[in-house]
Order: sequence, then C-alpha cells, then structure tokens
Amino acid sequence: MNTVTRNFLSREELHQGYRLACRTYPRSDLIIHVPPESLSTSQRVQIEGIRVEVQPEPLVQAYEVRLSPPSLLDLRADDTRLFEELKQSHQVDCSCIANGVLPELSTKLRSLDWHISAIIRGSELISIKGWPSPQLGLAVDLGTTKVAGYLVDLETGRSLKAKGVMNPQVAHGEDVITRIDLARRNGADARLMRKMAVEVINELIADLVSQVDASPEDILETVVVGNTAMHHLFLGLPVGQLARAPHVPGVGRAMELKAREAGLSASPDGYVHLPPNIAGFVGSDHVAMIQGTGVFKAGGVALALDIGTNTEICLIHEGKMTCVSCASGPAFEGAHIACGMRAADGAIEHMRFVGQSLQYFTIGNQEPVGICGSGILDAIAQLYLAGIVDKGGRILNDHPNVRSLGRVREFVIVEAGECGRESDIILTQKDVREVQLAKAAIRTGIKMLLEKNGLSEYDIDQVIVAGAFGSYLDMESAMAIGMFPRLPLDRFHQVGNAAGTGAKMSLISRTKRVEAQRIAHQIRYIELAGEPNFKKTFLEATAIG
Amino acid sequence: MNTVTRNFLSREELHQGYRLACRTYPRSDLIIHVPPESLSTSQRVQIEGIRVEVQPEPLVQAYEVRLSPPSLLDLRADDTRLFEELKQSHQVDCSCIANGVLPELSTKLRSLDWHISAIIRGSELISIKGWPSPQLGLAVDLGTTKVAGYLVDLETGRSLKAKGVMNPQVAHGEDVITRIDLARRNGADARLMRKMAVEVINELIADLVSQVDASPEDILETVVVGNTAMHHLFLGLPVGQLARAPHVPGVGRAMELKAREAGLSASPDGYVHLPPNIAGFVGSDHVAMIQGTGVFKAGGVALALDIGTNTEICLIHEGKMTCVSCASGPAFEGAHIACGMRAADGAIEHMRFVGQSLQYFTIGNQEPVGICGSGILDAIAQLYLAGIVDKGGRILNDHPNVRSLGRVREFVIVEAGECGRESDIILTQKDVREVQLAKAAIRTGIKMLLEKNGLSEYDIDQVIVAGAFGSYLDMESAMAIGMFPRLPLDRFHQVGNAAGTGAKMSLISRTKRVEAQRIAHQIRYIELAGEPNFKKTFLEATAIG
Repeated sequence: MNTVTRNFLSREELHQGYRLACRTYPRSDLIIHVPPESLSTSQRVQIEGIRVEVQPEPLVQAYEVRLSPPSLLDLRADDTRLFEELKQSHQVDCSCIANGVLPELSTKLRSLDWHISAIIRGSELISIKGWPSPQLGLAVDLGTTKVAGYLVDLETGRSLKAKGVMNPQVAHGEDVITRIDLARRNGADARLMRKMAVEVINELIADLVSQVDASPEDILETVVVGNTAMHHLFLGLPVGQLARAPHVPGVGRAMELKAREAGLSASPDGYVHLPPNIAGFVGSDHVAMIQGTGVFKAGGVALALDIGTNTEICLIHEGKMTCVSCASGPAFEGAHIACGMRAADGAIEHMRFVGQSLQYFTIGNQEPVGICGSGILDAIAQLYLAGIVDKGGRILNDHPNVRSLGRVREFVIVEAGECGRESDIILTQKDVREVQLAKAAIRTGIKMLLEKNGLSEYDIDQVIVAGAFGSYLDMESAMAIGMFPRLPLDRFHQVGNAAGTGAKMSLISRTKRVEAQRIAHQIRYIELAGEPNFKKTFLEATAIG
Repeated sequence: MNTVTRNFLSREELHQGYRLACRTYPRSDLIIHVPPESLSTSQRVQIEGIRVEVQPEPLVQAYEVRLSPPSLLDLRADDTRLFEELKQSHQVDCSCIANGVLPELSTKLRSLDWHISAIIRGSELISIKGWPSPQLGLAVDLGTTKVAGYLVDLETGRSLKAKGVMNPQVAHGEDVITRIDLARRNGADARLMRKMAVEVINELIADLVSQVDASPEDILETVVVGNTAMHHLFLGLPVGQLARAPHVPGVGRAMELKAREAGLSASPDGYVHLPPNIAGFVGSDHVAMIQGTGVFKAGGVALALDIGTNTEICLIHEGKMTCVSCASGPAFEGAHIACGMRAADGAIEHMRFVGQSLQYFTIGNQEPVGICGSGILDAIAQLYLAGIVDKGGRILNDHPNVRSLGRVREFVIVEAGECGRESDIILTQKDVREVQLAKAAIRTGIKMLLEKNGLSEYDIDQVIVAGAFGSYLDMESAMAIGMFPRLPLDRFHQVGNAAGTGAKMSLISRTKRVEAQRIAHQIRYIELAGEPNFKKTFLEATAIG
C-alpha cells in the first residue's frame, strides 16, 4: 500500500478494504460496484402525483381515554377496564390487544396515570401512548429503481412530506429479472435484497418523521405498493415461480402484516397493507395507478400505462379492464444505450432540430453528461423526422454529424471539446435498435389489448401515462417513433407518480382500500406470450413512424 | 479441590461448578437449591380428571387439496389457486395465510406436487403439509406446583396421552406470591420464569408426541389454563399489579396468540388459547374446573373448590355464580410443616387410630419419609377425635406419644429407630396452627359466599372438590377439623384434575370454548379483604371441629 492511500484513508477504512481508485491498478478483469449514493448528482425521483380529494376514513384511530384506577369496589382487570371505557365513552368495540402491547399494558396504564391515547385498529388495540399523540401514516411506492415515501396525517388525510430515494437493490441488478434470478438461486441474496428494501423504507421513515418532529413509532399504518417482484422480495416470499413460465405470483390477494413482522421501524403492532397483485409482472403499483388516476371510472376507451423496464398497460372499456405486461427493457432508464444515463443532473432530456443543428436541453441546465430516456426518444424522433433515420431504424448518411465506424453508423450529439468534454455524446445504430424493441413492446401491448376488446387505435379516447419517465416524455416524439398511435395531443395525460397517489388513497380511506381490491379483481390479465398474433404484431411494431 | 471430586465428576461438570456435596464444607450461611428432578422419588401428579362426552367441533381442520398446476391458460396466483379450490371442494372460505406459512407457500405447493393438507383455522391457512397429516391438540393445566399435559386427537376428540410433571418454577418459590414478588422486582427473573414455563410445556410436548410417533408441529392448537399469576408469567405480562392491593389481573379476557409467539414448539402458526381469568387470584383454571365438572349447570346449591396454596371457591345457586379466593397457604402441600413433604413415595397420606396406636399408610407402601397434606389433615382430625388436640388446637398431654420440649408439645407419629429411621416423624403444635389457619381460610370463604347469597351451610346440596390434594383428602377428616361444614358424605364429590378436563373441552369444541367465556363472564368475584365480616368469621373458623 502506498503512502498516499495511507494519508487519505483512516485505519478503519483501510481495514474494511477501502483503497484509492486513483492509486489502484487492476491486474485482471474486475467488476466495479458504484453504490447509488456515491453518484455525484442525485437522480430525479418522481414523487409528485395527482391531487385527489379523498374523504379520510382511517383504519386506525386514537381515542382519549381516562380510567378510574382499580379499587376494592372496582376490581376489573386492566384490559376489561379499558375495553369497557372505550365502549362507554367512544362506542368502540375493542376485543383484542396486540401481542406487543400486552406486556406493557398494565405498566403503561399506571405510568401514564390512567390517561392515555388508545390506538385502535378494527377491534384491536395496537398501541398505548400518552394523550395527545400524532397519528401518522406512510404510503410507499417501492419501485424497481426508485422508492417514494409519503407521510400523511391520518386524521385529516393531509400529505405532510414526501421523499424519493434510489432503491439500493439496483446494486443487485438494474431490472427485476436479474434480481429474481439472483434471489431464487441464493437464499442469502434474497435475504439481503429483502433487508435492503426494508432498510430503504426505514431510512425514508426516519427522514420523513424527523421533518415533522415525530418518531417512527408515530406511524400507525403503512401501505406499500410495488411490482410483484418487489412485493415478493420485500416480504421474503420465494420468487422462483416468477422466473419460470407461466410466471405466476406466489401471493395475489391483498395482504396485511404487522410492521414488526415486516421489519419496519413504524409502530410495531401497526399494520403494513399491501394491495393485491394481478400477475407475475403486473403488481399492486399498477392497481394503485389505476385507482390513483381514477381511470377505472372513465367512459369511452381509455389506456393507462406506466412505462419502465416492464411496462404495464391497462385498457378500460365499458367498465371492463384488461391488462398486459410488456418487456420494454431498460433503454428508457438509459441502460444498454451507449451514452445513456439516468435522469440526473447533466442528462440531455430533450432535443430539437433547429435548422441543421440539434439543440439539446439538460436536467438542471448542467454541462451535458449523457442522455436519459426522454432525450433518447427525442433524438430518434428528430432524426427520423429529419430523414436521418429511416422507417427500418437505419441511420442514413445524410447529415454531417453521422459518422461511420466500419459498417456501423452513429450520430454525434455533442462533440468532444464542446463544453470541455473529453469524449463525444453519441447515438449509435445499436441504441436505435434498443429503442425500437422497447417501443415495439409497448405498441404491441396496446394493439393486443385493442384487438382482444374488438377495438381499433382510432377508438382510443384518452391515454394516461404514469410514472417518472412518462412525466418527462415528449408525446410528439413518442407518437413520431410509433410508440403510441397517432392521436390528438390532448388525449394524452401525463400524471406523474399516480401509484403513490393510489397508495395514499388506500392509506387514508378504508373505502378506497376496498375499491383497490375491487379494481384488482376486475382487471383481466392477458399473457402476451400465449397470444397467437403476438410475434407478428411485435415485428410490425418495430418499424419507426 | 480434592481427588475424590476429580474422580467422580467430569471436566465439564467441574467447569460448570458441580462439586460433591459430601466433600464440600460450607463456610457461611448458604441456600441449597434442590432441583425437583433430583428428588429421589417423583411426586404424584394428578392428571386424571372426569370423563365427559363432548362432541368434537375443532377450531382447526385439515383439508385434502389437489390443485392443477399453473399454465398459460390458468395464470392464477398460488394463493388464489389454493383459496378457490378450498372453496370449491370443501366450501371453506379461507382468506388469509399465516405469516409463517407465506414464505413457504409457493415452494411447498410445488415440492408436494400440488397435493396437500391445507390446515385451516377460521379463515386462516396456518400450515401446509403432505396429505394425510395428524391433527393433534394439547391441553395444559399450568399449576403453581404441577403441570399436566393432555394430547388429544382433534378430529375425534379422543384423549391420546397424558403426562404430569413438576413446575420447574418451584425453584423460584413454592407459592405464587414469592414468584410474583421476584418477577416484579427483577426482569431477568421474570424472563427466566417465563422461559421455565414455556420449556416445561415444550418438554411435555416432546414426550407426548413421541408416544404417538408424531412431531411437535403436528400440534395444531393448544389450550393453557392456570391461575392468573401462572397465566401472566407464561405470557411475560407484568405481575406488579397482582402483588399490590387490590390485586387486579393485567389481562382478564380470553386470549389467543400463535405458538411461535408463545415460544411453544407446536405448529408455529397454530394458536394457543388461554381462557379468561376472573380476578388476580382466580384464574382460568378455576373457569376450566367449573366447566369441566359441569357444576355451573347444577340445581340447588353447589360449591366447587380447588384446594391449594390458594383455594378458589365458587358457589352456584339458581344459575348465579359467586367466587372467592382464600389464602390457604402451603400447609396442604406439605410446606411449613415440621415433617411435611409433597405427595411423593414414602409420604404418610392417611392415618387412623386403632386403639391407642396410630396406624399410617404411605404412598407407594414405602418406608415413611414424612407427611403429605392429606396425612397432616388426618393426623389432626384423629388427634382431635381422640381428645389429644382440643378445639383451640392445643396438643394436650394425654397420650404417650405426646412430648414436651419446654412449653411446646409435639406428637410423635413414627419414632426414630422404627423402620430404621434416624429421626422421628412428628406433628408439632406449630403444624396444628398452620393447618388451623389453612382450614379457617377455606371455611371462611365458604361462609362468606353463603352469607352473600343469603344461604346457610345447611342449604348446600353438593360440594365438588377438585385438584390433586382434593382427590386424596379424607372428607371425614376435613369435616372433623371443620374445614368443611358437616354434611352427609355423599354430598362430596372428589373429581381429580377437573381443570384439565375443562381445558380439553375448550380444546376440542368451539362451543365449549364460548361456554367457558360465558361462565367466566357470569362468575361474580368477591374480594374477601373488602368484606366487613371477614376478620370475625376467620377468627371463629380457626376453631377445630
């Protein structure tokens, strides 16, 4: 070890294996693990969804209770005393004490001098605190890439704080398939991924409650939505059956477990509710999105989709809902793209030809670093409209920025030297192919859904596009490359993180929670792999335009 | 350390602190801990109760389920598949999967090739096994001194095996008061006593299931009855409020928790049911006894009691039930008696004067070692009837076996030398006083109950005497010393461990379980300490005869 390393790192860091990358020479092939938190700029995480007015009907409620202490004339047991007072003063039928509350019931009643907040869920006493006490709830959208947490006041239904962070599981694979594969092969990896999901939520909890001067135990109820793989990994359920055809979920129905059992730092006997999953690749986040947007009540023909590595699409028509899942791949996350990157500062998110010159716009107006999903889509649309990319997706030699390396062409977006960059930012022929596959997957899903319902693309009255990528996506570009059929622009609605909105609805209202289950029950899932026209439709959909 | 010790003990034993008592000289006062299992003869533990015919209505049931595996044409989630099949084939509405079963659901369905025993309780799936699988239940009477376990076939309601063992907590105090005091002062002692209660039940489980070639996980439901202190210690509830007036239970109502949560080795998601407690010193074992004997349905005036360190007495009259708890002390357990001992081999359990000579009978026809409860009662009754003890309890100088040491007299029952004994077996003046206090406590309880109900002792139609001591007690002697009012002998019924019978009833029948709760709810508890006539009645009741 050299002296520079010793000077910069502590003894403990050295012991943990830390070395200075700038002073370390690899002697063989190696994998470099870049933890998301070490990225110089943090990724843009979509936490804002739709504003919906929901009447609060919380499942958990705190009641102020004053008890008379036991005496020779009143020998009721502590639990009986409390239950009878709850019944008398609040007309609440409490019949059961959570196991975590039991051992402290008698001592707490006495130490709080018989004046308490009795926190009740259904007929169960889930916590005892001094009166008054905050009544918080947490909604979580546990995404493959991003995790969004929403802190809510259960009494008023008001959103207090929201925060988005990266899912640390990305260290174990960008997409769910990689993670499922890892988890089913190796129990330790499955446990580690579970731990990561739990810990990232606990970090969100710590951060959010500190912003309102509360403590994690003040969170009395939690709702977690996510795709089926995230759902299973979070609960420690086996994922083998998700990996193998026909890819069925282990658990489909809505679930409830205690925060303690889930490993969350919320009130230990508070519950964590997980809305139902629909299929192996259509999870509760899709249900939450359908509910959050209100699209399930739409008249006419509506499409609702959340674009990601996996894109779930739901078609709503005359009260009937049909959904599919499309393997759209990680191109829109910036992966498998030569100069692709996530939607972080410096990512080119939009492009337009102004004359012969391609103008670009970066996130945070920073010097360009790479291209994120919406930028890639814009680039291809602009090149196609300018005649530089043809219908088949081939980059033609019709522009000064097109370069050929052997038989493979690429388009230079930002040249080395410009803005002090050391290398070009380019769009390669392979990048175009990746996007073609991705958009074909989505378009095929739309086509198959319409076909199954006896409808055509002209029948579509509205398209709801949810999710982070969907929020920044240029709809003109998306139509230009043929990801979506050509429709009047005002039929598209980009709604942000609607899954988070749906999760919040299930958190604050028992009626909405039942509604979510009804929605899930009504959605009919179609497995595209089982459809005879699937391959043909997909091949046709790869064409640009 | 001397060579003899080294020769007899292994290195490990020495390391653990074992030494040979015969080679060890105490240098100061010390407490010698004699673990119950090291007693040369095992104590007689009452496990046989009353035979009652109960229609089995188990709360848990195993269903044979054959599922078709998922396919492209049938993409239902594993849980949906199972629930729908249960509904279709067995008309069972299962809506929830136990948390312990969830992580193994998908893997077990596949490893058992979709042919399983689905073990359902209410609407919860609590276990998955191969078909067929045993359906066992366990009833436990967790007594202060003794623990009785009953293994039951839940399908047929048939008792399979029974076993009684000592409660290892006796090492922490013979009576509940000592244990409560220890537990409330020291959390570590409380935890240790909880552990002991749990472990002794787990040992019973291991022993009982091995007798029927089953495994602990085959126990799908458990019912535990015990006095309130045992109940609280077993569950890890605080006992401070039991120690302080007015001695109210922390938990009165019936409780259910998972075997896993209770620490039992039964099927982890199977339930442990604890029937309700009535007061700080009238627990669920009393409820079980009232139910097991059927006395709650008795016409006329009935008394039901379980004699122990604490004696609970219930008076049943015209469908009304009133109960008291009497601090009868440990004399009947053989404690605080000069030559007292438990009901183990060699204990004198009965005595009769034949002319001037007192004949005695020992348990197991062994050489006499000491006197157990029923023997002590016989001795005092016989001495009183023979005019050697007067009404006030004084030992008179009217028999050759009466000795005086200073002003204190004692009666020699077995002389040193007889049967090769090195010392006398005697009954001291202090022993008589102890028994006077004990029997006065019981008689006072009876009197107060009658008084509160406007009845007299002549109105009593039947007396049910439950429990181990009550089974071996000579009723003539009990009446002779005035523990019970003088009544025709056929009004007394000695019923053995009726609490165990009651526990078994709650185990095999959901109707009986509801009945137990109704009984508990109907019993009115009277705190003797709060009664104005208590002291006067007690003083009068100390007189013998």
